[in-house]
Amino acid sequence: MSEDDKARPTRDFGETRKRAAGQQTTIHDVARLAAVSIGTVSKALNRGGRLKPETRERVIAAAKQLSFRPNDLAQSLHRGHSLTVGLISKDNFGRFAMPIMEGLEECMADRSMAVFMCNATDDPERESHHVRSLLGKRVDGIVVTARRADRRPPLEVAASGPPVIYVFSQTDDPDALCLLPDDEGGSFMATEHLVKLGRRRIAHVTGPENFEAVQLRRRGYRAALQAAGLSAPDAHCLTGAWSEAWGRQALASLFDDADNAPDGIVCGNDQIARGIADGLRERGVDAPAAVSIVGFDNWQILAEATRPALTTIDMNLKELGREAGRRLMEMIAGASMKGVRRLPCSLIVRDSCGGRAKS
Amino acid sequence: MSEDDKARPTRDFGETRKRAAGQQTTIHDVARLAAVSIGTVSKALNRGGRLKPETRERVIAAAKQLSFRPNDLAQSLHRGHSLTVGLISKDNFGRFAMPIMEGLEECMADRSMAVFMCNATDDPERESHHVRSLLGKRVDGIVVTARRADRRPPLEVAASGPPVIYVFSQTDDPDALCLLPDDEGGSFMATEHLVKLGRRRIAHVTGPENFEAVQLRRRGYRAALQAAGLSAPDAHCLTGAWSEAWGRQALASLFDDADNAPDGIVCGNDQIARGIADGLRERGVDAPAAVSIVGFDNWQILAEATRPALTTIDMNLKELGREAGRRLMEMIAGASMKGVRRLPCSLIVRDSCGGRAKS
Repeated sequence: MSEDDKARPTRDFGETRKRAAGQQTTIHDVARLAAVSIGTVSKALNRGGRLKPETRERVIAAAKQLSFRPNDLAQSLHRGHSLTVGLISKDNFGRFAMPIMEGLEECMADRSMAVFMCNATDDPERESHHVRSLLGKRVDGIVVTARRADRRPPLEVAASGPPVIYVFSQTDDPDALCLLPDDEGGSFMATEHLVKLGRRRIAHVTGPENFEAVQLRRRGYRAALQAAGLSAPDAHCLTGAWSEAWGRQALASLFDDADNAPDGIVCGNDQIARGIADGLRERGVDAPAAVSIVGFDNWQILAEATRPALTTIDMNLKELGREAGRRLMEMIAGASMKGVRRLPCSLIVRDSCGGRAKS
Repeated sequence: MSEDDKARPTRDFGETRKRAAGQQTTIHDVARLAAVSIGTVSKALNRGGRLKPETRERVIAAAKQLSFRPNDLAQSLHRGHSLTVGLISKDNFGRFAMPIMEGLEECMADRSMAVFMCNATDDPERESHHVRSLLGKRVDGIVVTARRADRRPPLEVAASGPPVIYVFSQTDDPDALCLLPDDEGGSFMATEHLVKLGRRRIAHVTGPENFEAVQLRRRGYRAALQAAGLSAPDAHCLTGAWSEAWGRQALASLFDDADNAPDGIVCGNDQIARGIADGLRERGVDAPAAVSIVGFDNWQILAEATRPALTTIDMNLKELGREAGRRLMEMIAGASMKGVRRLPCSLIVRDSCGGRAKS
């Protein structure tokens, strides 16, 4: 007995020896033990063809004795589906990719589909390598995700290849299906919440101009102000970094002119909102009594740790991942879908706005 | 032409029709186009057997024309390896699982292995389902990870099944291989850093007692104090929650007796350290001039946003994931490994301790 064998509880010496040698029980072993042909084993385990009941039972017993599982892979080659999909994430598995992955995996597992995870980092060569590998593995579909929802070149998959879906990611190919959160709607909802609470001087502090999300969220903020018959001076709409430090800096600039300081601030993300909340406390301004703050992302661990705990917008990324899974299954079944679809965000009410909105 | 066909740029009508019908190019199509037998296609693409060069070239040209890739799956069935491994994560894909996944995926992709991602949530039934599915797919190995590194029941895989490795997770099975960060060593390093900077009254504020990591990190803290000939009163070693709020609360209790307040605080994680840094600022105590703070986790986005930016311990989780990949490959090749192995942590120096340690 080798060192390898000693390392594991041994239930079947022959089997353990096989594993140590890098082998696995095959259909041949089952056929040998049941004293039938390979074709008979295949018929018995796949419940196809005509067999005597006692033959079928003998095969099933042999398969059980050898812990032989009908090989999904070999079966799938016959059915024309591998029951696998690939998930390609650009820019690592980040904070936004994770809930999408969870939702996708949950949806797929419920349908007995397995998901290959591929991290393309930001390297086109690595992405190409992953695509080739996935195509070689005959995946039934591919999901592409990213750290930010801006446009990217389309994945290089032939027209004859498996269907591809983009989630929290977009491409210029008009024939591609892209699922995104409704940034504009989410920001409208955040701003409307402050309006309903009676706020009238509502500012917007957001991230870098070159993010599509920044442009969309600002549009939602402005639309909600307009719908309420309100307006805001240019000095109340500030772009900067996605950081706490920018939130504190923007707050200082908003409060330079204390007489015209805002009574509500719609933030581009939760980090900015955290910076604003800390900045207000350090200035001795009471939030939410004097100023309401609303964040964006519902980054739970940060939103809950902020004083006051942040009311914020949730992009429902896990649901976006589930939706990607459902749509991909339809495409695998032959459906054709394209275009950009935006799924609704939700308002998560905590303490930073001063109570539930009057409806 | 159906709606399905219109949805994608059509390069090859026959191929597109095939995809829409859920079919894929097969070895039969290549054989037909090259006017050879299936066996000849197989020989030509696998570079085996004796073939006339012009026949081989004709087959390769036909395969290229049809975008036919030699099927990894079908090939692997012959070689006895599927070139896939499964990653089972308990408790979702969290902040700690992410870098581990990245490291594992990177290591595997470099070796042309693909990784199935399986989220077992905290549900044993879901985990069993995933294990069955992975075994059915003939994975060559399985990696188990979790949100915290405490003990769990062993994965239910027969002795004849693929090798299993636990990373940032442990099991009672003495024959299992478990890879973990060296919590004790990391905390020793953090405490020693403060000692070298001249701190003499070093406190420890950490998380819930029932985490193994809490016990190990406290042991490292005490060992470093002892090595320096220092000691700390019981009131300077506080357990609580993994939260900013607990950090602020613990700070208040440490500074109740201002004359005996610490001049250095080793924190159980970065959230606690953030709470302590905020608490010190709100009390008007200068960090790092009067009090040095060191965190644990190197949760970059939080550590960098803290004022002062946190010096902290990095568990090197991505490297832990890579190491899991390397060890699993050795086990797949037949090596036997078991026991608990702890990989070293690193000290990341930022601003919260007041400078680099004197060496």
